[in-house]
Amino acid sequence: METLKVIKIGGNIIDSQDALKVFLADFSKLKGPKILVHGGGKLATKLANKMNIEVKMIEGRRVTDKATLEIITMIYAGKINKGMIAELQANKCNAMGFSGADGNTIISIKRPVKKIDFGFVGDIVKVNTETGNLLLNNNITPVFCAITHDANGQLLNTNADTIASELAIAFADIFNVELYFCFEKKGVLKDINDDDSIIEKINSKNYQSLIEQGLIVDGMLPKLVNCFNAIKNNVKKVCVGTSEMLFNPNSKFTTIEI
Amino acid sequence: METLKVIKIGGNIIDSQDALKVFLADFSKLKGPKILVHGGGKLATKLANKMNIEVKMIEGRRVTDKATLEIITMIYAGKINKGMIAELQANKCNAMGFSGADGNTIISIKRPVKKIDFGFVGDIVKVNTETGNLLLNNNITPVFCAITHDANGQLLNTNADTIASELAIAFADIFNVELYFCFEKKGVLKDINDDDSIIEKINSKNYQSLIEQGLIVDGMLPKLVNCFNAIKNNVKKVCVGTSEMLFNPNSKFTTIEI
Repeated sequence: METLKVIKIGGNIIDSQDALKVFLADFSKLKGPKILVHGGGKLATKLANKMNIEVKMIEGRRVTDKATLEIITMIYAGKINKGMIAELQANKCNAMGFSGADGNTIISIKRPVKKIDFGFVGDIVKVNTETGNLLLNNNITPVFCAITHDANGQLLNTNADTIASELAIAFADIFNVELYFCFEKKGVLKDINDDDSIIEKINSKNYQSLIEQGLIVDGMLPKLVNCFNAIKNNVKKVCVGTSEMLFNPNSKFTTIEI
Repeated sequence: METLKVIKIGGNIIDSQDALKVFLADFSKLKGPKILVHGGGKLATKLANKMNIEVKMIEGRRVTDKATLEIITMIYAGKINKGMIAELQANKCNAMGFSGADGNTIISIKRPVKKIDFGFVGDIVKVNTETGNLLLNNNITPVFCAITHDANGQLLNTNADTIASELAIAFADIFNVELYFCFEKKGVLKDINDDDSIIEKINSKNYQSLIEQGLIVDGMLPKLVNCFNAIKNNVKKVCVGTSEMLFNPNSKFTTIEI
């Protein structure tokens, strides 16, 4: 089977126009089939503030009422996604923007209300690879924003890490999939103040002890859940670090193993 | 050659959520390959007002500065396009959203500044049918918003009628193309106050006299330029009217002939 790289970008790479431009130029040069996944949190918050729409976060997750879903759809699928597609084309990377509704690719259900009502937030139930695969086979790079749909006409805000992980798992049926989570840190760090204190391997054995030592906290916890979910479901390689891990063979980063 | 319907919707069909829902349900039932094209003018103006961004129109055309281009990208490619894709999927029509940047499908140049600087407005120079055709051949319906790109990373606001017309012309190489401009009127009218005074045929012969009689004015003038451009360039059928012309064989509308 051919190797497919599924690359999720977040944090500073999205928030800084300059960093994004550099990343997309490098990304365009990557050989072989590839899928890009992005969120875009800070820009959505910025627009919500401008429009006097309250931003509500619970446990680090955005509560998505109707007005917030609109903002997210405008920012993620509109401004960020189309800006990225235009930039990729300028770099001769033929790309195609996706929400989960496009090609009926990612179907989710509105998260059931338990203690907290997260609103229009989707939990993924099915990934259809047909349209993405059709494009990949024609040298077109799918670029996914963090929106899915419920197949009944409702768009749903969905965590970009989870989208990347579920895409990787679904495409693992037809490709050797490598999954990369790129952000501003070089990986999972032993010492949050030391950028070079990278934990190079995390596996089921040392994971629990890393949590107990307090080395995996906040946003890193759900990210690692997504990592383990992927590696346990047929994804061949799962890595967390800066985008350098994609382009520089000598760079260090965190690899997640079973 | 197979018949391809290129359908542009504008006016009330876009501005009313209910009308759009009904249209998309009907559209989903249309047999055979089809392409949908939409703008979304009023919603963009609404968001610009909310954000205190000045809306500047010259000769009925929107002047597109950087802030306006952002709004248009968010509304057209984000809110409207993704809402439509989700609704089409709910109607079992497998659809895929496009800006002109996606699949490098519509390349334009920023309109040269003569008397008026329209800002980030694009004039189409090339249409690539490959990605659209790939999807059509796999029963996926492309849905285009009114944005193109210059292949150098710049998105450009582009008239939706012109996009529909240029797509129709490009696809005429591989399909028998029928082009439909749908809006709230039943066609070009003899008497603006009489909805049933439809001019059923407009051709090069009666066109000039219709203009001289003052029956073709304002937005209808550029629309008819797009119509004639299509019919003179290998598009088999060009019609203007309500969406009823697509679904009801007995309905009346305006047909443009050479």
